[in-house]
Amino acid sequence: MTDFSFEIQATDGRARAGVFHTPHGDLLTPVFAPVGTQATVKAVTPDQLDALGATLVLANTYHLYLRPGDDLVAEMGGLHEFMQWPKPMLTDSGGFQVFSLAKIREIDADGVTFRSHLDGSVHRFTPEKSIAIQENLGADIIMAFDECPPPYDRAYNEEALARTHAWAERSLKAHKRTDQALFGIVQGGVFPDLREKSAAFIASLGFPGHAIGGLSVGETKAEMYAMLDVVNAVLPPEKPRYLMGVGTPQDLIEGVRRGVDIFDCVLPTRLARHHAAMLANGGRLNMRRKEFARDPRPIDETCTCYTCQHFSRAYIRHLIVAKEMLAATLLSIHNLHTLVQLAQEMREAIIAGRFEAWAQARLAA
Amino acid sequence: MTDFSFEIQATDGRARAGVFHTPHGDLLTPVFAPVGTQATVKAVTPDQLDALGATLVLANTYHLYLRPGDDLVAEMGGLHEFMQWPKPMLTDSGGFQVFSLAKIREIDADGVTFRSHLDGSVHRFTPEKSIAIQENLGADIIMAFDECPPPYDRAYNEEALARTHAWAERSLKAHKRTDQALFGIVQGGVFPDLREKSAAFIASLGFPGHAIGGLSVGETKAEMYAMLDVVNAVLPPEKPRYLMGVGTPQDLIEGVRRGVDIFDCVLPTRLARHHAAMLANGGRLNMRRKEFARDPRPIDETCTCYTCQHFSRAYIRHLIVAKEMLAATLLSIHNLHTLVQLAQEMREAIIAGRFEAWAQARLAA
Repeated sequence: MTDFSFEIQATDGRARAGVFHTPHGDLLTPVFAPVGTQATVKAVTPDQLDALGATLVLANTYHLYLRPGDDLVAEMGGLHEFMQWPKPMLTDSGGFQVFSLAKIREIDADGVTFRSHLDGSVHRFTPEKSIAIQENLGADIIMAFDECPPPYDRAYNEEALARTHAWAERSLKAHKRTDQALFGIVQGGVFPDLREKSAAFIASLGFPGHAIGGLSVGETKAEMYAMLDVVNAVLPPEKPRYLMGVGTPQDLIEGVRRGVDIFDCVLPTRLARHHAAMLANGGRLNMRRKEFARDPRPIDETCTCYTCQHFSRAYIRHLIVAKEMLAATLLSIHNLHTLVQLAQEMREAIIAGRFEAWAQARLAA
Repeated sequence: MTDFSFEIQATDGRARAGVFHTPHGDLLTPVFAPVGTQATVKAVTPDQLDALGATLVLANTYHLYLRPGDDLVAEMGGLHEFMQWPKPMLTDSGGFQVFSLAKIREIDADGVTFRSHLDGSVHRFTPEKSIAIQENLGADIIMAFDECPPPYDRAYNEEALARTHAWAERSLKAHKRTDQALFGIVQGGVFPDLREKSAAFIASLGFPGHAIGGLSVGETKAEMYAMLDVVNAVLPPEKPRYLMGVGTPQDLIEGVRRGVDIFDCVLPTRLARHHAAMLANGGRLNMRRKEFARDPRPIDETCTCYTCQHFSRAYIRHLIVAKEMLAATLLSIHNLHTLVQLAQEMREAIIAGRFEAWAQARLAA
């Protein structure tokens, strides 16, 4: 049995610095995971990911099931080998993508039938199927199959939560690989009582870690933070907490402040492909702007990433205007480094016992 | 005065291994230069170029004059600084692009008036203008302004050659920077007498190196090789010879066999963006083919590039099918490495005195 223990090394308020053991190495938390939807973090190589400090990469079960197929990935030795990422990996359950990208044909107690967004072909996910796919993919951290409903629809959330809870039990039962940590997912929309109930139920099942899903999907930031307060008051502190799909600097800080350990988001790479550079203070620069045409400075003068250590704003703007692929690569490296580094900085502040002061200064900047 | 001497370290038949001194380091020849048209070798970072063994990078005068402008590049510290390539660089004269990409308005004895392929705006290149732009860009090796006519039109070639020769003299006269080596360009289409006359005239002007232009533009391989025989019998052996725009493995070998030292070509990166992997033996693999879907082998089992040391054909095919940018990056690294490595292998064979045997074995493979 693989050791998936989580050691809390320091706390500061509700913020925690820890280490989560996985078969592909120790994860130091808080940690931000770049997203490699189709078994590649768009526009960057694994070497570049490693150099910018990434330690955990997420891949998408829904996408890889459809293409190239989880059986093919398994035949090629699993995701780590296939995409050549030797450090810890995480896969989602496919649930979120089925409900956001695919055309749903039917949701019932047993599972979901949907049409592929690629070719319209009909497929069915159940908890057992999601786990089987994730076992084929072979990530270190995998997710229980869940349903992510619109956050404000109370009736739908109640109904979906019943399914998510039943599916969590079935996911746990279906999961056989001992070298993967299966996390349960808390849902419940923006409803404190549903969130509390969900956290208590999911926690009762004995997962080695817990995810908080259904946030950053249309609700306000105040609502997101309120849900984190509710959920994390219930989830056992001795297990890692993963806030799914969350990715602005502000949300990372507010999440850690409320006891979250793991984050992932497509935001840094998506913004990069749309010419936006993320700044550590939460600001963004549209690097296509004319004002950068003759600007010899790096994107961020305090940044230590490959992009900022080498290239001027003028050069990056030139690449964007000239439609050169290197623009997406350099901006992705910078944006990912910004969030990976932010998580690392929070870790150091927690260990030094000055997290709250650091967070307040950072959020005020 | 910068030292641009060329030392021939070994010869084997007409093949030579040498070292060409430049302000940004010594170039070991034979050498293949990746092309960075718009101040970036498409889809790869300077770090990746360095890691695959590139020592010389070419950039295009025509493209950079139009966008972002050579004055902007100069203001940003020159091409080396702008694109962060610290090793030797070469710029062409802009002549070839004006005649192949732009819409020509007028060619006269003084220069060429053309419309930009980007926005239709009207511009004029003269030898003096081409040199002024190249001085702004600041490459180590720069080119005299020349005209590249269709290879089979005798009358046009005679007329164009007169201009190219007059422009070579004017380029030499206009060039002031002492930290750049200005190469003269031999033209003459597929006509041995014109090529011989051109080589003799260009050689008489005292350039520190010579380029052979107007080949690989539609003539047969036999004609190209025949022209190399004619030209290199005339060009002084003590100066480096650069065969412009040539880029298949076979042509590199046949070029070196005929005394060529420097090559450049867009072929490896262009093929990469069209999913083709180059093999050292001159073959190509269309990596999108279904047969590679479950192929765990690297593109080339003998290749030492980053791509072949890490990724399977199955993964590369997946990236192509999924339209992921990383496909172009990984294939560009492999293809560039193939040609850079081929030049290096030829150098070693020449130094070891076994070039001819090596070349025959390689061409028969």
